[in-house]
Amino acid sequence: MIQTRINKLFNIELPIIQAGMVWTSGWRLASAASENGCLGLIGAGSMKPGLFREHITKLRNYFKENGIDRPFGVNIPLIRGDVEELIKTAIDEEIKIVFTSAGHPKIHAQKFKDNGIKFVHVIASVKHALKSQDAGCDAVVAEGFEAGGHNGIDEITTLSLVPQVVDALEIPVIAAGGIADGRQIAAAFALGAEGVQIGTRFAATIEASSSDAFKQKIIEAGDNSTILTMKKLNPVRLFKNKFALEARNAELSGATAEEMKELLGKKREMKGIFEGDIDEGELEMGQSSGLVSEIKSVKDVVSDLLRQYDSSVKTLKT
Amino acid sequence: MIQTRINKLFNIELPIIQAGMVWTSGWRLASAASENGCLGLIGAGSMKPGLFREHITKLRNYFKENGIDRPFGVNIPLIRGDVEELIKTAIDEEIKIVFTSAGHPKIHAQKFKDNGIKFVHVIASVKHALKSQDAGCDAVVAEGFEAGGHNGIDEITTLSLVPQVVDALEIPVIAAGGIADGRQIAAAFALGAEGVQIGTRFAATIEASSSDAFKQKIIEAGDNSTILTMKKLNPVRLFKNKFALEARNAELSGATAEEMKELLGKKREMKGIFEGDIDEGELEMGQSSGLVSEIKSVKDVVSDLLRQYDSSVKTLKT
Repeated sequence: MIQTRINKLFNIELPIIQAGMVWTSGWRLASAASENGCLGLIGAGSMKPGLFREHITKLRNYFKENGIDRPFGVNIPLIRGDVEELIKTAIDEEIKIVFTSAGHPKIHAQKFKDNGIKFVHVIASVKHALKSQDAGCDAVVAEGFEAGGHNGIDEITTLSLVPQVVDALEIPVIAAGGIADGRQIAAAFALGAEGVQIGTRFAATIEASSSDAFKQKIIEAGDNSTILTMKKLNPVRLFKNKFALEARNAELSGATAEEMKELLGKKREMKGIFEGDIDEGELEMGQSSGLVSEIKSVKDVVSDLLRQYDSSVKTLKT
Repeated sequence: MIQTRINKLFNIELPIIQAGMVWTSGWRLASAASENGCLGLIGAGSMKPGLFREHITKLRNYFKENGIDRPFGVNIPLIRGDVEELIKTAIDEEIKIVFTSAGHPKIHAQKFKDNGIKFVHVIASVKHALKSQDAGCDAVVAEGFEAGGHNGIDEITTLSLVPQVVDALEIPVIAAGGIADGRQIAAAFALGAEGVQIGTRFAATIEASSSDAFKQKIIEAGDNSTILTMKKLNPVRLFKNKFALEARNAELSGATAEEMKELLGKKREMKGIFEGDIDEGELEMGQSSGLVSEIKSVKDVVSDLLRQYDSSVKTLKT
């Protein structure tokens, strides 16, 4: 695979980032991704600070016991009420790579810089990409409409977004949204991205901490199995289960933000992804779930990605 | 550029199709596209049979006068009330390449075959791709959510859709939606497409029959300037002008299909695209309008596409 500024920035073999997904990206998934040449991220989005620290410690212990010396990072959603505490935990634990999503990276930039932390913000429009660059981010993740989970409001797809962000920025761009296959990695690089962030494909691995029932739904999904809903609150892409269809129908009837909030209730992500309530939970996955047909080890996933990538690039060389 | 089954199927130099857009793709645009190595399509969607025949004749006269011998085709939306008459016109005029959109290609397949016509249907899901293959189509156009104008109901993006359709079919796949730049052509080929169909970039050319005011809006558009609306009728991607925002607001308030139909009224496409009513008309363009910054000749557009493509492919070779 090509070498880019993203390889250098994080000192990684492959310019592939495993997304820090809620209820999914614990120390097992992150360590396996890093061990196999990618950048693994622990997803703090579903962790209280104590649990977050525990995952960091467990990953380090695993690396120590197995003589592994690879970089890894964490993802922190900036809209969390206890965001200061999560960032403090990362700094105390001497984490050197932080991916942030939602919220404003500028508020926290100085803390990251003072502690020698490389930080990358997830954006879904050129405007927010420019703001992230101005805030001092080392890179951005440009995430398209097809991505699973929380999503931008402008509905710009990865194919449209990435080249426009690449043209607007000096810092490197990591493409995300819809990438589950090595052909799509090659496509992202063709668009000018210097790395890719992969969620759904890594969620359907043995090492992901999400429930088997949730992983099974990723396998079942076809090309048209997801929808973007909750658009009046915080848009989220979900598998079209009972809850997601209820949410869509409420939207089509003109439900207000307040009514959508009431319908959503609490802890639906945990219910769906972690506890495996496939009817009432939120099953966050991207449109690329249609390309995922087997739960595999991270090692086998990475090996598939490399093989598919090579074969795709060969087509373009002829 | 790579040579694929699409080059052979249509006997064209470049596997690039100029989309048959309403009020835009007349004989001037189609002849210029074909003259420059692409496949030009006359868009019958906004033409009565008589006018359609006139455009075919004018294109042929232009070719004859200039000693040009290149293939061209036509696009026929199958939901038109006078579809039989349009198809009869194409057959009478000995058209040998027909792209169809909306509706069911199976109904007309025998007529196409009996007259030695290669026919290609535009689809937006794996299910419809398979139906088109079964109907005997020679290829499909897999068009993603980012595309301008009329759009599928499943909201699958080009990056997600193309590899899934490629995996499902034997016949070649042409990628469409969001492609305005040579980097995106390289990306489409990386995904397994064997051709690309380009709309918006060709709409902002000197040769397009659309109004200058409409072309100017394509130039003005940024990454987030379009929305998909009219979802309860027939989803359409529009520049966010006064009318499009009214339509969106009506949708957010839960307007019924009947109410949306009344709001839409009649002839908004003609008003917006052809007459240049930038407030009250429908300004159909894709998300890739953010990448289009100048009205150019078709010749210059094709030359840009080739240069951008080469430079993109070079990145992947290192």
